[in-house]
Amino acid sequence: MNESARAAEDGLVTGATLVTLDGGAGYGLVEDGALAWRDGVIRYAGPRAGLPGELAGDAIDAGGGCITPGLVDCHTHAVFAGERAGEFEQRLQGAGYEQIARAGGGIVSTVRHTRAASEDELLAQSLPRARALVADGVTTLEIKSGYGLDFDNERKMLRVARRIGDMLGIEVRATFLGAHALPPEFSDDPDGYIDAVVDWLPRLHAEGLVDAVDAFCERIGFSLAQTRRVFEAARALALPVKLHADQLSDGEGAALVAEFGGLSADHVEYTSMAGVEAMAVAGTVAVLLPGAFHVLRETRLPPLDLFRARHVPMAVATDCNPGTSPLLSLRQAMQLACTHFRLTPEEALRAATINGARALGLGDRGALRAGMRADFVHWRVRQPAELCYWLGGSLAAAVYAGGRRVA
Amino acid sequence: MNESARAAEDGLVTGATLVTLDGGAGYGLVEDGALAWRDGVIRYAGPRAGLPGELAGDAIDAGGGCITPGLVDCHTHAVFAGERAGEFEQRLQGAGYEQIARAGGGIVSTVRHTRAASEDELLAQSLPRARALVADGVTTLEIKSGYGLDFDNERKMLRVARRIGDMLGIEVRATFLGAHALPPEFSDDPDGYIDAVVDWLPRLHAEGLVDAVDAFCERIGFSLAQTRRVFEAARALALPVKLHADQLSDGEGAALVAEFGGLSADHVEYTSMAGVEAMAVAGTVAVLLPGAFHVLRETRLPPLDLFRARHVPMAVATDCNPGTSPLLSLRQAMQLACTHFRLTPEEALRAATINGARALGLGDRGALRAGMRADFVHWRVRQPAELCYWLGGSLAAAVYAGGRRVA
Ligand SMILES: [Zn+2]
Ligand SMILES: [Zn+2]
Repeated sequence: MNESARAAEDGLVTGATLVTLDGGAGYGLVEDGALAWRDGVIRYAGPRAGLPGELAGDAIDAGGGCITPGLVDCHTHAVFAGERAGEFEQRLQGAGYEQIARAGGGIVSTVRHTRAASEDELLAQSLPRARALVADGVTTLEIKSGYGLDFDNERKMLRVARRIGDMLGIEVRATFLGAHALPPEFSDDPDGYIDAVVDWLPRLHAEGLVDAVDAFCERIGFSLAQTRRVFEAARALALPVKLHADQLSDGEGAALVAEFGGLSADHVEYTSMAGVEAMAVAGTVAVLLPGAFHVLRETRLPPLDLFRARHVPMAVATDCNPGTSPLLSLRQAMQLACTHFRLTPEEALRAATINGARALGLGDRGALRAGMRADFVHWRVRQPAELCYWLGGSLAAAVYAGGRRVA
Repeated sequence: MNESARAAEDGLVTGATLVTLDGGAGYGLVEDGALAWRDGVIRYAGPRAGLPGELAGDAIDAGGGCITPGLVDCHTHAVFAGERAGEFEQRLQGAGYEQIARAGGGIVSTVRHTRAASEDELLAQSLPRARALVADGVTTLEIKSGYGLDFDNERKMLRVARRIGDMLGIEVRATFLGAHALPPEFSDDPDGYIDAVVDWLPRLHAEGLVDAVDAFCERIGFSLAQTRRVFEAARALALPVKLHADQLSDGEGAALVAEFGGLSADHVEYTSMAGVEAMAVAGTVAVLLPGAFHVLRETRLPPLDLFRARHVPMAVATDCNPGTSPLLSLRQAMQLACTHFRLTPEEALRAATINGARALGLGDRGALRAGMRADFVHWRVRQPAELCYWLGGSLAAAVYAGGRRVA
């Protein structure tokens, strides 16, 4: 992005169909639309013919296509060092998970590489992934820590997340996921590791590095009791919580995060009816992660009809990570959500915009209407369903965050 | 591509790992490699230290990454008018195939739009798809007719295919697929339609518009006897044949195309052991199309172990088409081939290069070695397995066809 583009926080675009997502249902299509913003905030989104005179002026002519709200990727592990394509290859050559783990693979490999990288190296490796996400329409990006697993390296990851937001001109929401995995130095003392996590959190928060707190609650991760301790530490700081819940088994994680009034329960393939009910009452978003489902060739679907029936908002995210979801495009996650989970394209688009924003506690984005942040994407498509239909390609003609062009 | 780039049919690249695919197995990795070409043909591909003096000179420094042969997409329907994202959406909203067909959807919708478009309109709609494929590494692109289904419109499609090749600076192989579907005007006379197809073929060939001949042999397509008539017409012109075979049932299509010494049998999910055996004897390539498998959520895998055991070369293609495989990236087809079909990344890369070339009857590309066409891609990856690992993103730093930069 060049500086002249950055300066333009006011603007007007015409000549495209607006996909406003305004209101509770439907795309909110406005043909021959106009979108005007001032100081990075939308002032008008509607028919061109209705544009107020004081907002008229030099317009960018989109020349067709559709404009949607900027995409919100509400669950990623995009900051890491050392991709794991080698393991991916070994598995396809017949190696089992144990064999790979014995050879030093798995998450410990990512932890090792992430710890070994300097902050600048970590930024250099992570930035292209964030850039790819932005190029395909993402204007708000959640990034978790969780490959450092000690104070300095968790801090390094969160600092890199912040720097990515500054460099790309988008908003990055940083989530502290100290309770992601047990580091080797605590391998026989998980409760001692939780003590450490609970100790690090206020220090990281004091540096302004934490927007939310997450944990991996699973038989192969942390227990409900350990997760509760992390959540209590978050509550003491008035930080919102979210949870990797019920991915591989029903661990009652969804109910726990709902009990804490959490932002979201993520994965949720095995969430029970009681868990869904608790989420509905608490207003907790269900974050679907079809990338991991695809890569791991899972077959257990999240309880989608229960979410629908109980009006639990569904979000979709890339889960961008080197082990189970090497996704560099939220649009591809939307495609996978339609193919594997049978979301409609409209559900998938809401999931990647307004509901993704809600999963981050952000009420100022995810729809095109006056008062919302001027986060939007001009797509070279005739209809919004195409965003979920095509696999591959480069459909985003222009991406704006806070009224500034970022891709 | 600018003109100055087009002029450079000689060149030298250093500073990357070569993935030569030279020899029958393995990636053929050359670290710190050099690739030199003259008049669009590779003169040297090997260690930089071994570069012959007469090929030395100003080198492009790749600055890391991997260089593979240019990708060969050996099966596409990329020329069409009118995407079908609306149908995709209707199906996800619960509409059945019949309901969509009654509403004018399905392939007849693509035929209607393709017939209605002028040649220039058809080019304008198809070119961005071809550009997307090239941007992700494709340097040889097969494109089929088959949405015109009358002489003038089949001719129009084939002319557009040729124009795409000229405009993008890549090689397009044009396949006549008149026997793709029964057009409405022949709905009660399939044999009469085959008479017409057999009549059109020599006329289209006389215009230089046909490189190969294909048909859709299936219970819902054309019979073995009808396909045989098309193949005999091709043989009379010394044109190679290929076939959409055994996608939905074992129709003995693979054996038929092998009987004609065909280039490839494509889809082949239901091909029997006898069919595989016939392909092995004839040297017919198995073209796997995981995009349609993914979109249609099929579960029947092609007989991969039989292909391996009988040394039938396996290719992978996008099958880019608006109904069942809206893929704009061959790399994504490789990812799907690994995920759904459990190809190894090395098998998938061979499938999308040397074996794709073989499926088009082209022996002059698909590997990096002296004498091959200078078709290659510089990828921003550390290891070739990454090409099958990432979903989304833009990994190609530069794409060369015939020694000229095309993306
Ligand atoms: Zn995750
Ligand atoms: Zn096809």
